[in-house]
Amino acid sequence: MGRRTVLLLLLAFLTARAAIPVPLALRALNNLHRSASFTSRPAVPKKYTVHYLEQKGFMWDVAEELKAMLVFAEHRYYGESLPFGNNSFKDSTHLNYLTSEQALADFAVLIKHLKKTIPGAKNQPVIAIGGSYGGMLAAWFRMKYPHMVVGALAASAPIWNFGNLVPCGVFMEIVTTDFRKSGPNCSETIRSSWSAITRLARTGGGLDWLSEAFHLCTPLRNSQDVQQLKGWISETWINLAMVDYPYESNFLQPLPAWPIKVVCKYLNNPSLSDPRLLQNIFQALNVYHNYSGQASCLNMSETATSSLGIQGWSYQACTEMVMPFCTDGINDMFEPRLWNFREYSDDCFKQWGVRPRPAWINTVYGGKNISSHTNIVFSNGELDPWSGGGVTKDITDTLVAIIIPKGAHHLDLRARNAFDPTTVLLARSLEVKHMKQWIRDFYASQRKKH
Amino acid sequence: MGRRTVLLLLLAFLTARAAIPVPLALRALNNLHRSASFTSRPAVPKKYTVHYLEQKGFMWDVAEELKAMLVFAEHRYYGESLPFGNNSFKDSTHLNYLTSEQALADFAVLIKHLKKTIPGAKNQPVIAIGGSYGGMLAAWFRMKYPHMVVGALAASAPIWNFGNLVPCGVFMEIVTTDFRKSGPNCSETIRSSWSAITRLARTGGGLDWLSEAFHLCTPLRNSQDVQQLKGWISETWINLAMVDYPYESNFLQPLPAWPIKVVCKYLNNPSLSDPRLLQNIFQALNVYHNYSGQASCLNMSETATSSLGIQGWSYQACTEMVMPFCTDGINDMFEPRLWNFREYSDDCFKQWGVRPRPAWINTVYGGKNISSHTNIVFSNGELDPWSGGGVTKDITDTLVAIIIPKGAHHLDLRARNAFDPTTVLLARSLEVKHMKQWIRDFYASQRKKH
Repeated sequence: MGRRTVLLLLLAFLTARAAIPVPLALRALNNLHRSASFTSRPAVPKKYTVHYLEQKGFMWDVAEELKAMLVFAEHRYYGESLPFGNNSFKDSTHLNYLTSEQALADFAVLIKHLKKTIPGAKNQPVIAIGGSYGGMLAAWFRMKYPHMVVGALAASAPIWNFGNLVPCGVFMEIVTTDFRKSGPNCSETIRSSWSAITRLARTGGGLDWLSEAFHLCTPLRNSQDVQQLKGWISETWINLAMVDYPYESNFLQPLPAWPIKVVCKYLNNPSLSDPRLLQNIFQALNVYHNYSGQASCLNMSETATSSLGIQGWSYQACTEMVMPFCTDGINDMFEPRLWNFREYSDDCFKQWGVRPRPAWINTVYGGKNISSHTNIVFSNGELDPWSGGGVTKDITDTLVAIIIPKGAHHLDLRARNAFDPTTVLLARSLEVKHMKQWIRDFYASQRKKH
Repeated sequence: MGRRTVLLLLLAFLTARAAIPVPLALRALNNLHRSASFTSRPAVPKKYTVHYLEQKGFMWDVAEELKAMLVFAEHRYYGESLPFGNNSFKDSTHLNYLTSEQALADFAVLIKHLKKTIPGAKNQPVIAIGGSYGGMLAAWFRMKYPHMVVGALAASAPIWNFGNLVPCGVFMEIVTTDFRKSGPNCSETIRSSWSAITRLARTGGGLDWLSEAFHLCTPLRNSQDVQQLKGWISETWINLAMVDYPYESNFLQPLPAWPIKVVCKYLNNPSLSDPRLLQNIFQALNVYHNYSGQASCLNMSETATSSLGIQGWSYQACTEMVMPFCTDGINDMFEPRLWNFREYSDDCFKQWGVRPRPAWINTVYGGKNISSHTNIVFSNGELDPWSGGGVTKDITDTLVAIIIPKGAHHLDLRARNAFDPTTVLLARSLEVKHMKQWIRDFYASQRKKH
């Protein structure tokens, strides 16, 4: 039967190059159509050169342990996988082939190709691994192509963030909880900040004062800009919740260990005067946007890496990937905002000339009715706002949930670190245990055939 | 929990309106691009009126027994479901949406819609039933949308007639076996006929003699026409093998009971002179093409109902549905013909401007590697040439095969008949038993949830 090895297929992008669905949260809540709203670098001029960082994660350790080959598959319309080159995002005709199902089909064809062309790969089991959107793809791939992969690890995969499977407020409630638990009065201070901004913006010279206080590269000129400011601040808190890792990291931004704790040190008094409260908010924002201390001003149009595929995701969010988000200002620390599908749809039509199909993802992937599938591990960090739309309870013996207390967005997929909480060590060892079981079952069924 | 009823979804067309993949067998072997090559009526002028026949089958009996609602879903690009009206078959741009996956997605959306709009349907289990291509769709639907249907009955579904999952000669070998077993020297006489036609065609006045002997509406003019004649005769034997039912029927043509036996009465002597042998072949053909005795001549361009969706299937055969067929003249009674994919692909390109993707169906639906799925009954008639590409052995406890000796193409889905062999009665009762089990399991899991 040859050497027993395993192909680990990594769907989409992991760790340093993860395609995270965070833009959507913001887009839903704030400004749907901002382009290039993410950067992993401090604000720098538009001219840049490409550098690659050798970044290893959990998969390398697993691959070594399972004697597996690692394959990173790039999702169509992301990175360099542009089916129509520079025209790929031109219009909906060129974007027609950007769907999760097409991506899954790519992976199926890729696996067939790899098994055919790589010596010794033909009869080896394959495992799908992914985080975030990649985690959803990993889970869906096992559901739709169970003949192709023996199992899937879906890390921080919010497969239930669609339709009304979970309350639309759950995401922002988890963000709020992270802040509430990271320092006294922290979430309260943030909750107070929105009205402080509103009040200040209405005073004479208020816009200038705010622009200066927040060190904005481009001064605020009108109430629309103020809305954008609020959106950008909200996005910062969301991103911090996602990357609240126990050690220094550089996923969306270079950040200190437990960044929310660091941020919350500035946010311990909700009762200050508006200017003083907002100066504290600036200090907090500065932790995220200028940890290196190199930025001379803060650029509202950049909050994470623009290379995270903002265009592709924006289109997907406007077709299949409709995730309802809302806030109420009571169970969360944000300004109240209802989920407004009509507005969302109109914005999509303006930007891409398409209307979203909000029911489709649950129709095609089963929503909560997925118990007939097998061999999927859903892992979720308890700190991660995306865990609200994730599978956090076992569905069957082979559709299992792993919760990682003290874990942020797919912490389990990141590289081993001395500061890893024991919860994530346990999660990783459970994940490997399941993978080994899938592989054993695969070989047992192979033996039965012969 | 309300009344316990079941929705039976009939994928594609059954019994009287079945979309059978037979065109492909012929196209592969003979003339790929003949249009309107099937008719269920005796040869009649092109002008016609539409009549509907109230035709009931197995599903009505099952529906009564299971207290189920019956839903017949028409496949896109077939019947009246033309997405671009008269332009639907205009070019590959308009045909782009004709794929089995799109059809499955339609069924998923339909079921959701039915559950939403029909009072009491919301929490009812659904079973997919289909025959032939519809049987493949039923099986594939359960594989891809297990959250939508509790199980599937796939009657005469040749899901393994793709790639090299089964030998390309198996289909024609079964046709041959049907004739060999239906009368002494029957298949031998047919095997002798091809060279007899070739020899006669080469003689002076041979084409006229053949045209007259076969009562052809349009006389043969050249060797290409002779090839077409052979193709048309082959197609007749194939169709007879599919509809070799134990009672008078009118599926592809009005026919007597056990039509191959009737045909074989004329085909008991392979050693006659060429003219006498071919006169007997004509008598045999006449059973199929002129059972009513109304036709004044035989029309080679019509062998079954043109309403069976010849255009749609031709396109599908040129994209996804590539079924390799071949003959060797030794294990079968036909002229030897290799499977020639290049020629097939070139013909497709000429006709539709597309090239087939022969590997795709096995990539997307798993080929023989489907053991992780559950709750599919595959039934196959032993006389049916399509059984060669069907699932004829149990795969697991819940992926089961039912063989129907003395059964032709999805005999089990036809209406009850006094002449039904006991084998098909047994098959139907087994099928109902499985359906009841799926329904019981569904309600048990529902109870567990609440």
